[in-house]
Amino acid sequence: MKFEILSLFPEIILNSIKFSIIKRALEENYIEIEAINPRNFSKDRHKKVDDTPYGGGAGMLLACQPYLDALKSIKKIENSETIIMSPQGKIFDQQMAKELSKKDQLIIICGHYEGFDERIKEISKATEISIGDFVMTGGEYPALCIIDSITRLIPGVLGDVESFEYDSHYDGLLEHPHYTKPREYEDLCVPDILLSGNHEKIKEYRRLQQFIVTKRKRPDLYEKFVKSEISDYDKIIIEKYRQLLE
Amino acid sequence: MKFEILSLFPEIILNSIKFSIIKRALEENYIEIEAINPRNFSKDRHKKVDDTPYGGGAGMLLACQPYLDALKSIKKIENSETIIMSPQGKIFDQQMAKELSKKDQLIIICGHYEGFDERIKEISKATEISIGDFVMTGGEYPALCIIDSITRLIPGVLGDVESFEYDSHYDGLLEHPHYTKPREYEDLCVPDILLSGNHEKIKEYRRLQQFIVTKRKRPDLYEKFVKSEISDYDKIIIEKYRQLLE
Repeated sequence: MKFEILSLFPEIILNSIKFSIIKRALEENYIEIEAINPRNFSKDRHKKVDDTPYGGGAGMLLACQPYLDALKSIKKIENSETIIMSPQGKIFDQQMAKELSKKDQLIIICGHYEGFDERIKEISKATEISIGDFVMTGGEYPALCIIDSITRLIPGVLGDVESFEYDSHYDGLLEHPHYTKPREYEDLCVPDILLSGNHEKIKEYRRLQQFIVTKRKRPDLYEKFVKSEISDYDKIIIEKYRQLLE
Repeated sequence: MKFEILSLFPEIILNSIKFSIIKRALEENYIEIEAINPRNFSKDRHKKVDDTPYGGGAGMLLACQPYLDALKSIKKIENSETIIMSPQGKIFDQQMAKELSKKDQLIIICGHYEGFDERIKEISKATEISIGDFVMTGGEYPALCIIDSITRLIPGVLGDVESFEYDSHYDGLLEHPHYTKPREYEDLCVPDILLSGNHEKIKEYRRLQQFIVTKRKRPDLYEKFVKSEISDYDKIIIEKYRQLLE
């Protein structure tokens, strides 16, 4: 996967990718990340990238020329998609991450400050993606979130031990609670069943906990789950512990 | 506002805050950001911070001792809140950003890799916050998103020109399209009305565009908006252009 990030602050991207899973994915050539600064493409003699809005109003807008010329400078490969980080976009989720992880190139346009000239979106035909319903100064931090979440899904990046099949949201449910050593910490003990060695019971207990946690913390996700195609195993657990899940 | 970030990768935080609005807010003492590495608090002789899960399963878990001792080392001030970045948390949004921006101290616990021993959440009494329904390697990038979005709302941080009242989501609607120079770019022209100089008409046009864009791209937000207390001005526009909004 080749990530190409258009940003007025390429250092935010480049300084943040030298750690953890992204660092390893870069070193092992599962991904490449390049940051391109539209300012370098500005034809203005002061390298200006923004201007006042037509129709008046506060703030400055990012102008077409530097962004679209920067975009044109990128060599597009076949299985490529262009994304623009925008509060108007579709909300990013795990399903979108899965789909985007199948691409070979992702071009991510990050705005900064006030916003884009609308024609940048029209001409680039970029997919608008939002990280959530809150306002940020620029697209750089959300782009890092997206890069991380997509990189994890590229086959080979995670080892078996880290496998993403155990993650929250993998099958639409939240994770069950986890416990590690010591058995007791400030009077809080690990649930006995996890120490029992009975793998069948532990499996059932954990699955039930997933149902309980999801229903309590994210009733919207639980609703969606019970309306989906549920395995026979899950059906039996839901039926058996019906009283706990009402 | 004092941000205290617990992270195994403090450099991800510290390398990313030297730019733009956050940089200025730091320089002008509106905010302070400190990153604390729980590894420095580990009592294990190899400075281990994780261990295998009770009950078996893949992956490692972040252990109570290093995280809770790191947390204890932070001097809590009066108006403080502790947050834990977690896929099980309440989804972060602009309303939450507004509430958190009124605090004087935010302690943000970032996990990394597999997850936390459940007792870290119980003992810290931290509020679980999620940035969205997707899986990430760690809480650092989401924490940066939250820091940015909260910092913008601290009075004084943004100048008048950048005022957040013009942002998407400020009143529950998306922004109208913006245009800047030149008037024509690759055959795409700025809408005539924005060049008319008629401020009343421009105001009405833009408000209508906000309704149209929100209805098309985020029908959920539009539904919420029309069910809220709408100003007389908005009612008139919605009635006048009913056909466009059906």
